[in-house]
Amino acid sequence: MLFADITLIDENFECKEHQWVGVLEDKVVYIGDCAPENAAAYGEVYEGAGRLLMPALYNTHAHAPMTLLRGYAENLPLQNWLNDMVWPFEAQMNGEDNYWATLLACAEMSRYGCVSFSDMYYYTPQRAQATIQAGMKANLCTSPLAFEPKDISEFPCFAEMEDGVANHNGEANGRIKFEACVHAEYTNNDVTCKSIIDWAKKNGVGMQIHLSETASEVEDCKARHNGMTPVQWFDSLGAFDVPLTAGHCVWVNEEDIKILAAKGVSAAHNPASNLKLASGFAPVPDMIAAGVNVCLGTDGVASNNNHDMFQDMYLMAMLHKGKNLDPTLVTPKEVLAAATVNGAKAQGRLDCGLVKVGYKADLCVLDVTGPQWCPMTNPLVNIVYSGSGSDVVLTMCDGAVVYRDGAWPGIDVDAVKAEVAARTQRIIAQVNA
Amino acid sequence: MLFADITLIDENFECKEHQWVGVLEDKVVYIGDCAPENAAAYGEVYEGAGRLLMPALYNTHAHAPMTLLRGYAENLPLQNWLNDMVWPFEAQMNGEDNYWATLLACAEMSRYGCVSFSDMYYYTPQRAQATIQAGMKANLCTSPLAFEPKDISEFPCFAEMEDGVANHNGEANGRIKFEACVHAEYTNNDVTCKSIIDWAKKNGVGMQIHLSETASEVEDCKARHNGMTPVQWFDSLGAFDVPLTAGHCVWVNEEDIKILAAKGVSAAHNPASNLKLASGFAPVPDMIAAGVNVCLGTDGVASNNNHDMFQDMYLMAMLHKGKNLDPTLVTPKEVLAAATVNGAKAQGRLDCGLVKVGYKADLCVLDVTGPQWCPMTNPLVNIVYSGSGSDVVLTMCDGAVVYRDGAWPGIDVDAVKAEVAARTQRIIAQVNA
Repeated sequence: MLFADITLIDENFECKEHQWVGVLEDKVVYIGDCAPENAAAYGEVYEGAGRLLMPALYNTHAHAPMTLLRGYAENLPLQNWLNDMVWPFEAQMNGEDNYWATLLACAEMSRYGCVSFSDMYYYTPQRAQATIQAGMKANLCTSPLAFEPKDISEFPCFAEMEDGVANHNGEANGRIKFEACVHAEYTNNDVTCKSIIDWAKKNGVGMQIHLSETASEVEDCKARHNGMTPVQWFDSLGAFDVPLTAGHCVWVNEEDIKILAAKGVSAAHNPASNLKLASGFAPVPDMIAAGVNVCLGTDGVASNNNHDMFQDMYLMAMLHKGKNLDPTLVTPKEVLAAATVNGAKAQGRLDCGLVKVGYKADLCVLDVTGPQWCPMTNPLVNIVYSGSGSDVVLTMCDGAVVYRDGAWPGIDVDAVKAEVAARTQRIIAQVNA
Repeated sequence: MLFADITLIDENFECKEHQWVGVLEDKVVYIGDCAPENAAAYGEVYEGAGRLLMPALYNTHAHAPMTLLRGYAENLPLQNWLNDMVWPFEAQMNGEDNYWATLLACAEMSRYGCVSFSDMYYYTPQRAQATIQAGMKANLCTSPLAFEPKDISEFPCFAEMEDGVANHNGEANGRIKFEACVHAEYTNNDVTCKSIIDWAKKNGVGMQIHLSETASEVEDCKARHNGMTPVQWFDSLGAFDVPLTAGHCVWVNEEDIKILAAKGVSAAHNPASNLKLASGFAPVPDMIAAGVNVCLGTDGVASNNNHDMFQDMYLMAMLHKGKNLDPTLVTPKEVLAAATVNGAKAQGRLDCGLVKVGYKADLCVLDVTGPQWCPMTNPLVNIVYSGSGSDVVLTMCDGAVVYRDGAWPGIDVDAVKAEVAARTQRIIAQVNA
């Protein structure tokens, strides 16, 4: 495809008008201020008038199958939310439920410009199948809630992990990756955590964790582990010697932030979830200032309640100004970088996240003709604050269109919605039985 | 128009499926679970499959012409934002600029389901003209920045106020109202403020003010006025004896809140603006608990940066959970009420803000077929957290369609955008000259 005469957010997050961007196979191969000589070789010419081309978004902390729980557990204290609602619901979810829910999550993410997600849940084959069908990318992982100090090989999920590395890591031309996972400090122990880290090193894969999401999690950890914060505890076990993405990072202190920066940990900021579950405000400006790779995530739909990464960009841009009473904090460029190239880096996809020659063609196109985009005095500002994910009209992953103008080439959304609605009703009936 | 077999948010903010809603002239005249007998009398039948009908939104604190400043002044401390950017820009705005910018604001508001706005700015005739052309409603006001203690009749804007009451209040079948205004305590004085209150009483009109937006505003007021907060100062002058809408109410204390509740003041919550300008978090849960009429506003686009009231609903639902570390605070019903019937009440439009027989037909229709709406376990939750203003496909004001499927019957949006873009460029050039 050849994007012709289009407004472009370039590899430096600067906005350039009247650009031509050529995609061949899975890569961007041409960017210039005129058409390439061999324009015909690119196939379809996409007219750029009224359109803005930018890198697609990377969602670095998700639980895609939780889409089934949209609107199910609301306005509840965290422990009731988990114990009384979320866990009983999840206990009824089977493999097919996970497949259909992941497909719906993929439809929603791609509709809002996202092509790749880091996903911590169960049923890896079903999640991989749905992601591949949707044409998207995912870093999948799974782990036990390991309250007993046993080697990871002794847990039932170990078979899924071995299968994930053997049969899914690298699947679909590298679109699927399988990673290690420690759900969180508070659901794990030294022995199991250490064995998962060793497993990750042995298999050369990255790792995903929940980290310092709530204040009580940090206090409980310190009580359990000789005053160590969750960051210090994971660090003491060597977790940060593995490429690691840590979800939330809300209650990290100054010392924690230094460790995250020094060890190259990616911090997946989840502003919507942190608000909705009343977890708190992550110290994003401090993490950015310290050089932490801050990226963005939606978390699960049960605590968001959607997969619109533009909404999380907006929240990231807004919240820290209000929280710190400082309107100079967090720039549009920092937000866009978090949602794109920083996220790709967190996923170990180093040729993704920018519109750049030689990079994978992971792109999204916005319709900027709506009144909310006028005037266009500062396009980056309009992207972050004025527009929305609904303005996305085309999403491309590895050079292939995964969403365009209300249609998904890989997904029959009406069928998926019918399946998800019916399965949700079945599960709620089972829970209430 | 007859909305047929549609999902309805009813007058109690409960969701009912398979409803018929009939509109004749400017009112809702029929609601039922089957078609009315005289169905043909309603004209067009609007098929309700995949659609949700709810009350239209009321924006109770806006500065519509500031749409020209979208993206102009960003990431700046408040004083630089005002002194170096906003005020020099505004000094170059003429009457025609205000007309075109208000038209653009109306297009944006109605596209996102809003039919009415309370607007504090200048150039009342131009704002009224644009609002009427757009088919919308507005409570317009204007006031001096009155640093000298003079009677309101001695200020140049007095002529605009007199003209507003004489020629615009009640215009277009009551769609336009003109109100009194005191910009804020920090831009006014006892003498002028008192004379504006007297003018409001004499003319039987409501009033709009900015109230306790920043912490320094409150501290400075206390220093100037014997320890009185802005709420106490306005109260001491009798401002709350007039029907009054107070924008922001961020730094109101417990005593202030009691006064606001006792005097029936409407508090216009502006969550986006309060975040972006780093003003703080309004004590919305406390105000709701105390019985204050909490409504919602976008504020001007220079501090938002759009007119999407759904985004402000989302922020209202999310922020106070995070700020107070309590996920039980602020329910979807409270948010919907703030954005609809509470806002209509603030504007003195007591037959508006609900889908109810006998009420004005101020409605919006959402397309709920997108993946972000599935499953629909709790429609109110999906409206507030999962969908967005972009899902609005029809907005009706006083029974007339003002937005539908990307088109505005009263506004040539392409022409408006071209005018606004050119005028913004001209003003920026003038500022920089």
